[in-house]
Amino acid sequence: MEKLIGNLLYGQSGGPTSIINTSAYGIFIEAFKHKNIINSIYAMNYGIQGLLDDKLIKILDNDTLLKNLLNTPGSAFGSNRFKLKSFDEDPLTYKKILEIFKKYNIRYFFYNGGNDSMDTINKISTYLEKENYKCNCIGIIKTIDNDLPSTDFSLGYPSAAKFIINAALEIYLDDISYKEGRVNIIETMGRNAGWLAASAKLLEVRGVKADLIYVPEVLFDLNDFLNKVEEIYNKKKHALIIISEGLKNNEGSFIFETNSLLDSFGHNQLGGLSIKLANLITSKLGIKTRYYELSLLQRANSICNSKIEQKIAIRLSKFAVKSAINGVNKKIVVVNRISSNPFKYNFKLVDINDIANKERYLDDIYINKENNYINDNFIEYLLPLIDGEKGLLNIYKINK
Amino acid sequence: MEKLIGNLLYGQSGGPTSIINTSAYGIFIEAFKHKNIINSIYAMNYGIQGLLDDKLIKILDNDTLLKNLLNTPGSAFGSNRFKLKSFDEDPLTYKKILEIFKKYNIRYFFYNGGNDSMDTINKISTYLEKENYKCNCIGIIKTIDNDLPSTDFSLGYPSAAKFIINAALEIYLDDISYKEGRVNIIETMGRNAGWLAASAKLLEVRGVKADLIYVPEVLFDLNDFLNKVEEIYNKKKHALIIISEGLKNNEGSFIFETNSLLDSFGHNQLGGLSIKLANLITSKLGIKTRYYELSLLQRANSICNSKIEQKIAIRLSKFAVKSAINGVNKKIVVVNRISSNPFKYNFKLVDINDIANKERYLDDIYINKENNYINDNFIEYLLPLIDGEKGLLNIYKINK
Repeated sequence: MEKLIGNLLYGQSGGPTSIINTSAYGIFIEAFKHKNIINSIYAMNYGIQGLLDDKLIKILDNDTLLKNLLNTPGSAFGSNRFKLKSFDEDPLTYKKILEIFKKYNIRYFFYNGGNDSMDTINKISTYLEKENYKCNCIGIIKTIDNDLPSTDFSLGYPSAAKFIINAALEIYLDDISYKEGRVNIIETMGRNAGWLAASAKLLEVRGVKADLIYVPEVLFDLNDFLNKVEEIYNKKKHALIIISEGLKNNEGSFIFETNSLLDSFGHNQLGGLSIKLANLITSKLGIKTRYYELSLLQRANSICNSKIEQKIAIRLSKFAVKSAINGVNKKIVVVNRISSNPFKYNFKLVDINDIANKERYLDDIYINKENNYINDNFIEYLLPLIDGEKGLLNIYKINK
Repeated sequence: MEKLIGNLLYGQSGGPTSIINTSAYGIFIEAFKHKNIINSIYAMNYGIQGLLDDKLIKILDNDTLLKNLLNTPGSAFGSNRFKLKSFDEDPLTYKKILEIFKKYNIRYFFYNGGNDSMDTINKISTYLEKENYKCNCIGIIKTIDNDLPSTDFSLGYPSAAKFIINAALEIYLDDISYKEGRVNIIETMGRNAGWLAASAKLLEVRGVKADLIYVPEVLFDLNDFLNKVEEIYNKKKHALIIISEGLKNNEGSFIFETNSLLDSFGHNQLGGLSIKLANLITSKLGIKTRYYELSLLQRANSICNSKIEQKIAIRLSKFAVKSAINGVNKKIVVVNRISSNPFKYNFKLVDINDIANKERYLDDIYINKENNYINDNFIEYLLPLIDGEKGLLNIYKINK
């Protein structure tokens, strides 16, 4: 089969992760190995929006500079929240895209993002095919939420999980420095999927146990919660609670959107769920609290990036480039786990439609019966993705 | 001079830092080298409170276990907020302390803490002298606030500063991933001293510049602030602002304690200054904001500990043990800077009275004329304490 010869376009979309630039690095270094096929590499400056504005960045073949991508959080080339409409709704945008593809002779297109971004690449590649413009398009998965189907994990999740585990461990160790501590509420991202909050289960690898972990897959009862917190704190004088930002109440709404207990705070006010729960515990139970919204740090912290995730990300990108050169089009590369111990995996190509606009929730098998903690089998899932035990803090324990 | 022979007691006090256990490590490994003089090592379990409860932990000479102290945030042996009264007010407590010192034949006492803790060691050593109980007492400085006088820096500060710089860099990089970003307000600790907030000046080492840095040493005008934020955001569509938790208004009170604009939030409500300022910016200016209370993570994060600080901490502890063996008593070991470039320092012994109960504020020479940023000379001060540039993220910059 004759190979497409031309240029490569890479773009970033959606919320940044601390691994997205590692994916970019993998694409670039592999592409630079095939200069007779891929002549030049461009990155969109601010995703599709940059493409439409004809703002492409030419990538220089300088490994020293490119290696900095491995430490750089954020989306180094700029991201966007542009939602591509259907061709029927917005044909001009599609024509503009084709025009730019032609202008730069783009024959390989890699778009790095979550569910929405996979929808974008699907629409673009379908349109290019219809117009008989040959271009191999491949989606590179990315989201810290881990909510993409068909893949063992989404790139960005393991490093974010590792940050959360270490942050929870640090907060725990700080709290137990005092004989009498506080109720500590740590809020992770994840409006619909509980993978990030669940990661705190892995504190157990260091002999520490969170008291409660709440995920949005199950309903959250505020009164049960308060009773539980009171019971734990009265017994231990410490409490470590991990919550997902997207907890929903028994009516299925985000809590505090409909809760009359908290009218005085007003749901338009800024401030995450952890702050509101902490306020409630203090006012109702009279117990000292601290809240921690991990916020952007969980997706932007690159200092404790999972080395194994970075290795997989680079390999996945290389696999994607090689696949595209071999004629693969309209696919997404996913990670397929073969075994957990030892951890073995390979890559698979799945249809874009299998992922685009679909969400994957934390599996039921990982959530305990009481809906307030995570089962042991989750450790087998997550631990191999964060360098085994070595990725986590080794802590000193006193001999009492 | 005949050396005191007996046992060593080590204690931790006040708020934990990510370096305090490194100080403990230095004390222990040096003391284990002098077993003919220091027979056994004990650590107080929860500081003075543990001493009074006769809860001492015997330290085992196991370097593998002890090395974990270098990664362990919190106060591994337990801290306390016990405020020792004067002998006249509470003679029984002093007698109890002497009794325990005698029971364990404590002849070397190292107490690791901030201003208050130095006051404690001062009182104890004065009492022991009065009772003719020979024991060499030395204070080991610790506080992330960097507000101890007589020393170039306090142990705990450089690593906390490094965490803040990297966190600010990560938040900045995440924000500029989008063409149109937010006003980002990062809140550091430091109720009276601005050293922690000032550390964000060092973003410049990575070619990034915070827009505003506010420290508690100068008064904070809310209207000026809002005008400034509006001006910056309208121009750049991004803003990075670092504030110290202890900002005070023109009347000298903590802001929002007396501000009528914000009565509706109530100052008894939990939620830091950054949240309140973010709410205000959103409601008054209609600009999107994000707030980040770095909270305990800045003092408990040990993953990005400053290696140079850890080296100094270990050396300082060793110097303290050797000094005590040589008869030094009622002193505090401080760091004396000889030069910044190259960074050279030595240790000095100062009287406990020079430090106990005294606060050191961010020097005027570091604060800019407009009272909203930090001068260049601050880089020369802080950079040598955080491994030079290598301690900070190396970031990739696109060529536009």
